[in-house]
Amino acid sequence: MPVFASDMLSSVAYAPDEILLALSLTTLVSITAAPWIGIAVGAVILVIVACYRLNVRAYPSGGGDYEVASKNLGSKAGLIVAAALLVDYVLTLAVSMTVFAAYITTAFPLLAPYRVPVAIVGIVVISLLGLRGSRARPVLLAIPTYLFLGAVFLTMIVGLVMVALGDVPQAETADYTIVHDAVTNQATLGLATVLIVLRAFSSGSVALAGVQTVATAVPAFEKPRGKNAGNTLVLSGFLAAIMLTGLTYLASVTGVKYVDDPHLYLVRADGSPVSAEYEQEPVLGQLAHTIFADTPIMFFIVVLVAALVLIVAANTAVEGFPGLASRLARDGFLPRQLASKGDRLTFSNGILLLAVAAIVLVIATRASATTLIQLYLVGVFASFVVGQLGMVLHWNKRLRLVIDPKARLRMRVNRLINGAGCIIAAGVLIVVIVSKFLAGAWIAVAAMAVLFIVMGAIHRHYARVASELAPDAEIDSRTIPSNTHAIVVVNDINKPTLRALAYARVTRSSQLEAVTVAVDEEAAEKLQRRWNEMELPVPLTVLASPYRELVRPLLAHVFAIRRRSPRDLVIVYIPQYIVGRWWEHILHNQVAIKLRTRLLLVPNVVVVSVPWRLRSFSRQHRGNGPDSELPLYGQV
Amino acid sequence: MPVFASDMLSSVAYAPDEILLALSLTTLVSITAAPWIGIAVGAVILVIVACYRLNVRAYPSGGGDYEVASKNLGSKAGLIVAAALLVDYVLTLAVSMTVFAAYITTAFPLLAPYRVPVAIVGIVVISLLGLRGSRARPVLLAIPTYLFLGAVFLTMIVGLVMVALGDVPQAETADYTIVHDAVTNQATLGLATVLIVLRAFSSGSVALAGVQTVATAVPAFEKPRGKNAGNTLVLSGFLAAIMLTGLTYLASVTGVKYVDDPHLYLVRADGSPVSAEYEQEPVLGQLAHTIFADTPIMFFIVVLVAALVLIVAANTAVEGFPGLASRLARDGFLPRQLASKGDRLTFSNGILLLAVAAIVLVIATRASATTLIQLYLVGVFASFVVGQLGMVLHWNKRLRLVIDPKARLRMRVNRLINGAGCIIAAGVLIVVIVSKFLAGAWIAVAAMAVLFIVMGAIHRHYARVASELAPDAEIDSRTIPSNTHAIVVVNDINKPTLRALAYARVTRSSQLEAVTVAVDEEAAEKLQRRWNEMELPVPLTVLASPYRELVRPLLAHVFAIRRRSPRDLVIVYIPQYIVGRWWEHILHNQVAIKLRTRLLLVPNVVVVSVPWRLRSFSRQHRGNGPDSELPLYGQV
Repeated sequence: MPVFASDMLSSVAYAPDEILLALSLTTLVSITAAPWIGIAVGAVILVIVACYRLNVRAYPSGGGDYEVASKNLGSKAGLIVAAALLVDYVLTLAVSMTVFAAYITTAFPLLAPYRVPVAIVGIVVISLLGLRGSRARPVLLAIPTYLFLGAVFLTMIVGLVMVALGDVPQAETADYTIVHDAVTNQATLGLATVLIVLRAFSSGSVALAGVQTVATAVPAFEKPRGKNAGNTLVLSGFLAAIMLTGLTYLASVTGVKYVDDPHLYLVRADGSPVSAEYEQEPVLGQLAHTIFADTPIMFFIVVLVAALVLIVAANTAVEGFPGLASRLARDGFLPRQLASKGDRLTFSNGILLLAVAAIVLVIATRASATTLIQLYLVGVFASFVVGQLGMVLHWNKRLRLVIDPKARLRMRVNRLINGAGCIIAAGVLIVVIVSKFLAGAWIAVAAMAVLFIVMGAIHRHYARVASELAPDAEIDSRTIPSNTHAIVVVNDINKPTLRALAYARVTRSSQLEAVTVAVDEEAAEKLQRRWNEMELPVPLTVLASPYRELVRPLLAHVFAIRRRSPRDLVIVYIPQYIVGRWWEHILHNQVAIKLRTRLLLVPNVVVVSVPWRLRSFSRQHRGNGPDSELPLYGQV
Repeated sequence: MPVFASDMLSSVAYAPDEILLALSLTTLVSITAAPWIGIAVGAVILVIVACYRLNVRAYPSGGGDYEVASKNLGSKAGLIVAAALLVDYVLTLAVSMTVFAAYITTAFPLLAPYRVPVAIVGIVVISLLGLRGSRARPVLLAIPTYLFLGAVFLTMIVGLVMVALGDVPQAETADYTIVHDAVTNQATLGLATVLIVLRAFSSGSVALAGVQTVATAVPAFEKPRGKNAGNTLVLSGFLAAIMLTGLTYLASVTGVKYVDDPHLYLVRADGSPVSAEYEQEPVLGQLAHTIFADTPIMFFIVVLVAALVLIVAANTAVEGFPGLASRLARDGFLPRQLASKGDRLTFSNGILLLAVAAIVLVIATRASATTLIQLYLVGVFASFVVGQLGMVLHWNKRLRLVIDPKARLRMRVNRLINGAGCIIAAGVLIVVIVSKFLAGAWIAVAAMAVLFIVMGAIHRHYARVASELAPDAEIDSRTIPSNTHAIVVVNDINKPTLRALAYARVTRSSQLEAVTVAVDEEAAEKLQRRWNEMELPVPLTVLASPYRELVRPLLAHVFAIRRRSPRDLVIVYIPQYIVGRWWEHILHNQVAIKLRTRLLLVPNVVVVSVPWRLRSFSRQHRGNGPDSELPLYGQV
């Protein structure tokens, strides 16, 4: 539980802030409404968690909403979810690290002017860890989650006991007053307030972002996977709901204020603005400050543990990304090479893109968690809506097949739960898009649209190629060429050349010749003399090269062979050096690579790369090379 | 003559300027000394030209000083010359385009503030022409040279006739006075003056820069090449010497002034400084202005023709560069792929480097021809010194073999000529380095040193690899593997796979199997079923991949084969797609490339790339592809 739930639980570190912030925008609803909104969000969490408990049991392969949507609503819907999920990964990273930076600067106010750099450094470090590819041990990831749970519950319990004893502590910001932008029309004010309450509710729903993480991590659970994942969901849902309600209640009774820009919207009790140095702490930080006023060390512990759990949440995004990419690649929505998860190199590119996108977002929003969370909500709830709709159809399908009335009843209930989840998610999505479209939600929508289009195009491309390559008239592709004509490209008489000759001879072609291009006439003559002296068992053809070219005369030679016997297979053996240092690539193989590229364009020609490992390579890879215990050919 | 001499003749457009400029630095020697220095430089030109007439006759293969030094003084000396020549190519381009910019801004004073950009645009355009690879027609290049010769001689003759008739025109700058930096000590002044006269002489020697161009262009001459090149040298040497002497004489009688910075060092007759807008014209421009005072169109013609011939000279550098690079590459001093001159791609990189270096120099010196020429002189005369020294040794060697007294006398005379050339060149080199080391000559020396070291390292690397690869114990490299084990990598049953199977079957290996990696278990099962249904004549091995990897299971399979039969040759057939659009590379072949790279590291394994040309490729290359008239395999 602690590993996959970190994403969900860590949202407690910023969801209350968003609720208070949204409420700070209106005069009509007191800040004391916060706990009610907290309860509402908590209820939503429970509904959605109940939904996903069904999801993961029905689709325990880790495909999450993507699989649900693809299987029940078609590949277009799956693609929408895929786009939303990709956006989510970027935003999990960006939001976690932005909030992380807020906590770090709360603990160390000296860093306050460097929130953006702190967030960026966080993203870079997390990505580098991801790029190294060594997954952190689950235990290591579990500790911060448990610490965070402990710290938050301790804060809550101490706070609630104080309140119960009638000794209600007052937050530093309790005396401050929130200044509001003047709203002239009372009617608009009313409408605006409704919208604001809805926004407070929807913003708080960011606590749900982590549900998806659990849903896609099902295969990593112990068996029975679906059930265990479902239980994890329910447990962490409960915990998150309790913490959210408790924290918003405490914030409201201790008078915590949280606004968009404290220097604009907060004034002291005497009406003077807050000092220029005032830095607003996150709600959890303010609560810890207030409740543990006598033991400041506790404030530090709470804040640092929150920062820690946010790192774990961000790490989940980086580590989870290859899984989604791999699935999308296998379904042909992303480049095929991403399908093999073990391939570090290709995933590096993916993680790099992820990190760059997150950094761009952090810079563009100047590390404003509030803005980023609006984008985040779009992605998260878009996939909820589609996924839950898919589940409703899933139950409809299943209902058609089942006649046992008890099972039917259970399925009807499930359908109701999923339907409710779908409607609630749709509600949140609409509120976010309506209230925040121009303020940033459009970015998430646009990013999803672009991903949708690009992935669709990739899918169509693969489909087109697959149909192009389908073996239709079987005769044509099973015919075997009548003869083979082997050519060994020779530049010099050395071990790689002799090896290429030996290999060419062992494959027993109908015809075999060695070919050299006389780029330097003198050298070519010398080569021919030595060739005869050594009595090599293969005839050598010397091609003239009036313009000191190497590739063109060889191509012309191959064309000539093809013209003479168009049905033959031409096999060109090219010796290639395996080098040990990067700069040796500049000095070796360049001509071989060029030759190979050009020859592959000629029909009925295959190119055989005969490797020779230079000593510099063997030295670099001594003992740890692939297969290094095996004797080299020639040393046997 | 006109094509290769453009470099040498065009130097007349800036050599007189450098003489006047150097002389402007002292009060002791009148500017009337200029013609004498012109005559001295002219005499040097004739000596050096006489030297190189011998060079090109003795070494008509176009190696120039590089060949002379390598053959007579050893490869280290050859390397010094090579480094010097490479620096020269950069500076020919930089100097020509800097002076070009000076002439262009003389013709169009509006462009005066943009001399640096004009020079850079010039370099870029010339390089782009060079990159296009279509060499300009000789006739096209000859016209500017003839025009320039005509324009300069016309100016000289008209000027000289005027002087002879006693009607000496006065230059605009004749009334101006040169202000000197105060020198307190009379003794230093004397010494400084000697140095300045020497510098005037050495700066004027830049007129010799073009000699090398002719020497390396010998193979392009008609037969007898050496003789024709020698005659060209002598003819253009005479022309350059005459023009230089004539122009410096005219400059001195018409009172032309040329200083480093007119706003610092020039005052009007009444002692007031020159106006802020005053732009100093090159000497040739000032002369044309003065002599054709009545027909301003002639001034334009002279200036534009000079600009034109400088373009031709710069073009010579860009076009000549591949020749030198090719020779250095064949001798193992530069990456081997440069040896084939016809390879446009690799030479593009060379020309790009050439252009970038020239642009950097132009920017660093703010398009100061005077500074660049000092660098230029270092390279030019360094190669002269080494080359002539090599020629002296050449004659010594020859003298040991010849007994005919007449021939011996001729050789002795030749040796004397080359010796004189060597001493004169060394003198100029010493003057330049002594007087200008800190002012910029160190850059040329440092660049030469770096090139010397890098090319030496490349040479040593190739030598080391060659000795490593020399077929010593012939048995080991001629042994033929006992058996072949062919593997066809299968991802899907499609045309490329079937073709790879067909090709693998035709090479008749001892063992043949198709191998697929079950990255996706479902897909692998489906593949196996279809394989059996189609009754393909090759057994299919399915490799498990618990971590959804593709490369590692295949490598493990190959290792297992190698362990079972270490003396077998393993041939891996990998289908590869030939795509038509750049972005298709992202979607195809990435796994194949990775697999190929890893397999090539395994001993006794060769990789066969079996190409399949996608329709997108065929569409792109319809009709103009290589070999496109030939039927594709399977369409026969």
